[in-house]
Amino acid sequence: MTKKITFAVDAMGGEGSPKKILDGIKLFNKENKDVYYKIFGNKNILNNHLNNFIDKDFFEIINTDNQVVDTDSALGGAKKGKDTSMWLAIESVKHKQSDIVISAGNTGALFVISKLNLKMIENIDKPALSGLWPNKNGMNVVLDLGANIDCSEKNLIDFALMGSSLFKSLFVNEIPKVALLNIGSEEIKGNDKIKNTYKKLSEIKNSNFEFKGYIEGNKIMDGDVNVIVTDGFTGNIALKTAEGTANFLIKELKNTLSNNLIAKITSTLNFVNLRKFKNKLDPRLYNGAIFIGLDSPVVKSHGSTDHIGFSHSLNVCKKIIKGDLINKIKENII
Amino acid sequence: MTKKITFAVDAMGGEGSPKKILDGIKLFNKENKDVYYKIFGNKNILNNHLNNFIDKDFFEIINTDNQVVDTDSALGGAKKGKDTSMWLAIESVKHKQSDIVISAGNTGALFVISKLNLKMIENIDKPALSGLWPNKNGMNVVLDLGANIDCSEKNLIDFALMGSSLFKSLFVNEIPKVALLNIGSEEIKGNDKIKNTYKKLSEIKNSNFEFKGYIEGNKIMDGDVNVIVTDGFTGNIALKTAEGTANFLIKELKNTLSNNLIAKITSTLNFVNLRKFKNKLDPRLYNGAIFIGLDSPVVKSHGSTDHIGFSHSLNVCKKIIKGDLINKIKENII
Repeated sequence: MTKKITFAVDAMGGEGSPKKILDGIKLFNKENKDVYYKIFGNKNILNNHLNNFIDKDFFEIINTDNQVVDTDSALGGAKKGKDTSMWLAIESVKHKQSDIVISAGNTGALFVISKLNLKMIENIDKPALSGLWPNKNGMNVVLDLGANIDCSEKNLIDFALMGSSLFKSLFVNEIPKVALLNIGSEEIKGNDKIKNTYKKLSEIKNSNFEFKGYIEGNKIMDGDVNVIVTDGFTGNIALKTAEGTANFLIKELKNTLSNNLIAKITSTLNFVNLRKFKNKLDPRLYNGAIFIGLDSPVVKSHGSTDHIGFSHSLNVCKKIIKGDLINKIKENII
Repeated sequence: MTKKITFAVDAMGGEGSPKKILDGIKLFNKENKDVYYKIFGNKNILNNHLNNFIDKDFFEIINTDNQVVDTDSALGGAKKGKDTSMWLAIESVKHKQSDIVISAGNTGALFVISKLNLKMIENIDKPALSGLWPNKNGMNVVLDLGANIDCSEKNLIDFALMGSSLFKSLFVNEIPKVALLNIGSEEIKGNDKIKNTYKKLSEIKNSNFEFKGYIEGNKIMDGDVNVIVTDGFTGNIALKTAEGTANFLIKELKNTLSNNLIAKITSTLNFVNLRKFKNKLDPRLYNGAIFIGLDSPVVKSHGSTDHIGFSHSLNVCKKIIKGDLINKIKENII
């Protein structure tokens, strides 16, 4: 039997937790017998959901009554103490008892507690929140999605190098194509920071990624590049605008297809096709934002996802560890 | 007969011009007999498309051989001289021979030539590019969409006041609800500039608009506010990301609905419903970006729209003049 990798799981964060966390683990465990789970949370509550759970060889529960909640401020969550399920899970990777930590809880608190406990990778100034974004040919890595409102040229270059390491660890056989998000594709567009970053990225000789210049918002999903770099303010607005647009369109489509009898009948006939459409664009497939820049990976599952979404982010965790993300970043950073 | 309003039309800009420009005018003229057109462009080319055009009482052609093209830089377009169709059209509003100018040509050049020819409204520092954006209940005005990469607090406040004037002139019976685009809805989120702008906007006592605080990207289309304010960098990225997401989804949906026989048959049955869906979200409905802040309105039609899209932006022009936009802005600015 090969050595298992160990996930530190904060079971108490996000809507519908801890049930969805445990159900997600159970689902993922079906096909993945190489992962061991250290599950942090309130044992009494967790026990209610352990009937028919996975084999006891695959997990242990580390009991704690304290927890960060969604309404805590980032700092407030951290100040709740060193015995929250989130803090203990992060400490577990700090002490090398786990390979990676995952939480569906408070993003701000997860970020602050991770920064308090984990060291930065040498020569990286700021960690970034990176996410997965569907495109025509597969998936993009986009960063930063909101961890850093103001970014320097150095930060943006670090994000490019870290983002391509992340892409490479998720999709082992592809050379990441990196682009800078901007308001035009010509070299002269954008502010000085963007232009200088462009120039410096063009000069980097590195076989681990290809720099493809600027990309505009309407090209993010075209699939011509796979790592998209921007500051946290712009990245967060872009991501949320895309989410809002997709939700709006899908709701409008649903209304259209259910507002009279012919529509209902034909939609039923067309069910399989529409399900395929929905499946391909299911946001649960892209669940799992990754804090990178710290010397251990930290994965944030969306708070409102269900157990299927959570199991997808467990899959991201596995790929990150198997793909040796942290060492890939270290090699990429000059 | 009531006095006609006069549109100065640059007929030479955008894909498929001048034919689509003339076809758009013809379409709009069918239901709108209160508009007169000064059409600027190459008479020889225009003459090819004047069979079955509108009655000669409704238009005149002002001949010029020179024109700005899409591949010109903004400054390069302006430097082509004072006899391009774009320059002459703008000059026509400058000299009060027309009430409003419209072009489907080079956005950058239109912006530069407008700024060279037209005065700023008193107490406004920068003009902004504002656009129409569909939402659940109707339409938003969003600005700035790319005219100003860097914006001060004063600029953002001006945009709020101008944007609500624009909304009010387009939708006369509604009180504009204004929001600032940000990465969170809590007061503490965002950088100092955003926070200070928030504070100042909260303090403005003005019955012409209601300030509703921050809005996140995923709420733009919810319909709870109707004027969304941001700097030109963020606004441009948000707009283009929304466009890209919508195009991606609609292409995926099309592929889904045409990749087998059952899908084809049921889609045909469902044609009317899907057409309704498409119609409601047709980007041509939202065609027409408006430069505001100058003492005459300047409207930019999308370069790649067709004659139907162009006629929609003629409708925007008419509403702006009938709604007395410039005076509404002057009243709103303190």
